[in-house]
Amino acid sequence: MSTDQPGTATPSPFAARSTVEQVEEGVALAPKFDSDGLIPCVTTDATSGEVLMLGYMNREALQLTIATGEAHYWSRSRQCLWRKGAVSGLTQEIVDMRIDDDQDAVWLRVQVAGGGASCHVGYRSCFYRTVELRGRSGEPARLTFTETSRTFDPKLVYGDAPNPTQL
Amino acid sequence: MSTDQPGTATPSPFAARSTVEQVEEGVALAPKFDSDGLIPCVTTDATSGEVLMLGYMNREALQLTIATGEAHYWSRSRQCLWRKGAVSGLTQEIVDMRIDDDQDAVWLRVQVAGGGASCHVGYRSCFYRTVELRGRSGEPARLTFTETSRTFDPKLVYGDAPNPTQL
Repeated sequence: MSTDQPGTATPSPFAARSTVEQVEEGVALAPKFDSDGLIPCVTTDATSGEVLMLGYMNREALQLTIATGEAHYWSRSRQCLWRKGAVSGLTQEIVDMRIDDDQDAVWLRVQVAGGGASCHVGYRSCFYRTVELRGRSGEPARLTFTETSRTFDPKLVYGDAPNPTQL
Repeated sequence: MSTDQPGTATPSPFAARSTVEQVEEGVALAPKFDSDGLIPCVTTDATSGEVLMLGYMNREALQLTIATGEAHYWSRSRQCLWRKGAVSGLTQEIVDMRIDDDQDAVWLRVQVAGGGASCHVGYRSCFYRTVELRGRSGEPARLTFTETSRTFDPKLVYGDAPNPTQL
């Protein structure tokens, strides 16, 4: 349910985008959604500062995030609204929510419930591998794992649900 | 110049994406670019942990970032390769580069040269406004400034260059 559809009860928490000055220096949320109707969202751990994931929100997910204080996303692989932690219990409570200069990106600082993980592979952060800089020319850049063990077993948590990673 | 074009001299630092296991658990960089040929990049300050910006890289920008250790992006508003700081001097030296689980997002931890700012509006971070949660229903969500003064004057730095913010 999009709240911007006629006939729905909840009014939109978003202002129209009228001028560059209003978007950059104003005090009303006027988010820009891309051609797929999505806005990217950087989510960091409020305590450690670590980047946990980069997700996407549609209008409804952003509206629900603001209304509830709990992170909601749009799952691009499953094409559905996604209350983070609905299956795993690893919900994200928002400590601080930011919008960027041109209002086309969101930053959430969150506290993760349960074991504190946010990655479907079982790691704490989705960004569990570093990229080697200035590597040997002609070979794929090498990755090094920064987390040596998984926080949870995705098979136990997600069962037979399809893996969201797409080639 | 894309290095994946036939006839160019520099070989690609990217591996092909063959299986989900290879992408999620492998040690070769096999990035996924979207339908516009871009991959999003979260850039944080290596010292403070603050999210400075969310940018986008095409293949060439990602390759140059890896080769030089300095952040390069693709400017969607100007439609050109963008060595961050080329005009402002506020270059970003990479301390740590990460790739996420399905390899469709990059995280850079950087040290910013000069005054330490990364936002074209003149603030330190692009995310200089918080979004009020659970605000009064029926009104646009309110924003509060977290930075009270600009780090630099964009008019002095960028002159008459067009503002990248688009409505």
